[in-house]
Amino acid sequence: MKIAILTIGNELMSGRIADTNSSFIAREANLQGWSVEAMLSVEDNFAAIKSRLNYLLTLTDVVICTGGLGPTADDITTEAIAQAFGLPLYTDEKVLNHIKGIFTQYNLVWIENNTKQAMFPRGAEVIANPVGTAAGFALQSAGKWIFVIPGVPRETQKMFPEGVVPILRREFPENEQYIAKQTIKTFGLGEGAVDKTLADVDFAALGVNIGFYPIFPENHLVLVSRQTTKKAAEEKLKLACDEVTARLNKYIFSYGEKTLEEIVADLLKEKKLTIAVAESCTGG
Amino acid sequence: MKIAILTIGNELMSGRIADTNSSFIAREANLQGWSVEAMLSVEDNFAAIKSRLNYLLTLTDVVICTGGLGPTADDITTEAIAQAFGLPLYTDEKVLNHIKGIFTQYNLVWIENNTKQAMFPRGAEVIANPVGTAAGFALQSAGKWIFVIPGVPRETQKMFPEGVVPILRREFPENEQYIAKQTIKTFGLGEGAVDKTLADVDFAALGVNIGFYPIFPENHLVLVSRQTTKKAAEEKLKLACDEVTARLNKYIFSYGEKTLEEIVADLLKEKKLTIAVAESCTGG
Repeated sequence: MKIAILTIGNELMSGRIADTNSSFIAREANLQGWSVEAMLSVEDNFAAIKSRLNYLLTLTDVVICTGGLGPTADDITTEAIAQAFGLPLYTDEKVLNHIKGIFTQYNLVWIENNTKQAMFPRGAEVIANPVGTAAGFALQSAGKWIFVIPGVPRETQKMFPEGVVPILRREFPENEQYIAKQTIKTFGLGEGAVDKTLADVDFAALGVNIGFYPIFPENHLVLVSRQTTKKAAEEKLKLACDEVTARLNKYIFSYGEKTLEEIVADLLKEKKLTIAVAESCTGG
Repeated sequence: MKIAILTIGNELMSGRIADTNSSFIAREANLQGWSVEAMLSVEDNFAAIKSRLNYLLTLTDVVICTGGLGPTADDITTEAIAQAFGLPLYTDEKVLNHIKGIFTQYNLVWIENNTKQAMFPRGAEVIANPVGTAAGFALQSAGKWIFVIPGVPRETQKMFPEGVVPILRREFPENEQYIAKQTIKTFGLGEGAVDKTLADVDFAALGVNIGFYPIFPENHLVLVSRQTTKKAAEEKLKLACDEVTARLNKYIFSYGEKTLEEIVADLLKEKKLTIAVAESCTGG
């Protein structure tokens, strides 16, 4: 399944805040076997939000929106999305009571603006916010799914996996897949040389995606296999790893997340060796 | 002027890397008085790059692209953009010699793949890369401008202000204005608190752009005024600075580029004081 991500907020467009929600959601989506077709950021503006959302809906059937769910006047995401689908807003009493409860608990002064955070487009399914006042929602329209969750990273990071993923799993059970993944770390060859050495391997035919991550002076490879059974995923991943190993063997120092330093330390321990270093003025 | 940003790379779409180039470019663009209409990320895929670029060109006349300029097979940005405009590629001998020089200097083995980094769409204006092998380029087509620079943040951060901005200033001279600029450095307030404290200042009405640069634990502000006369630029800048000073006075430690350490040293000299420090194991 393909998804698109729409991050909403003037603070993104001015560059004051770097968007970390898109990469978080992308990582989580990848773990589910879904790929991200587009990540788009837009200001808090009715026309722009509607127009960008409509564009993303031409690319994918699922759009995840973050941001613009606060109580202040500049937060207009819910209303913009309701407009985009020609839906009226309604007040969810359960959410309203939850927000009022938070205000009472923390002895905050209630102002009528806060009611806004309990309003949703008609037909929306509320996504609870366990760590804040801004609930999210899911909206289905003409076979398309739009999810809206807050843009505060702490809330996004809770509500995407706990609120959005379960609804998508429920609605798209046919996309259930098994994922096998392997990191391979190399040292001693440049990025171009690693790529060239692997050029004759047809990873697509093997059903495996490969990612190149140059982390100078190392080059890391990540192989990901997505199949309908666990066995198939693991088998295909193994075939691809074998092809990589056959070509890059002497440059590979780790299969996994261990660092070069950890590998050296392990080797020293294993061989009962110690290492002497002399240093000056590095402080470490 | 409005610009759009297209960041290109599978590492963005998999969530392995968070996009920091868009926020950097947005901050720099804001200081120039330009606004960002859309930030979009896309995978290293011919059809997707072409389609996303065409979409952004419906929104703005200027698109800044980063990423996909490496020598490896997965880096296809230049070719995709050439295809999008129906342009053939040519090899720039000057760039080729520059890259070969870097290989010789660092004693790296030359492979023919690297020639790719000296290829540009016909009619492109090369943007030199002072810190790497991947040159960028600017391309004009039917009144639209497309800029392509590498996605390595260190290179983006050099090439956007030094390579892209001067071309845009040259090509859109109607935006050429007198510029007055002031950096204000604060310490002791969080980013959110600084933002909130300044929320009631209408910088746009004052004709001044403000950039927020959180450099933990400091927060720097950059105010830029662009006017048709030097006098107007300086006057408007002063009004905006006064508004900031009135609100943040006790948190401001510098008007200018001096660091907190330099300010402390100056104060010590002025007051004929000395400072004693004890250190261990910091190496310096």
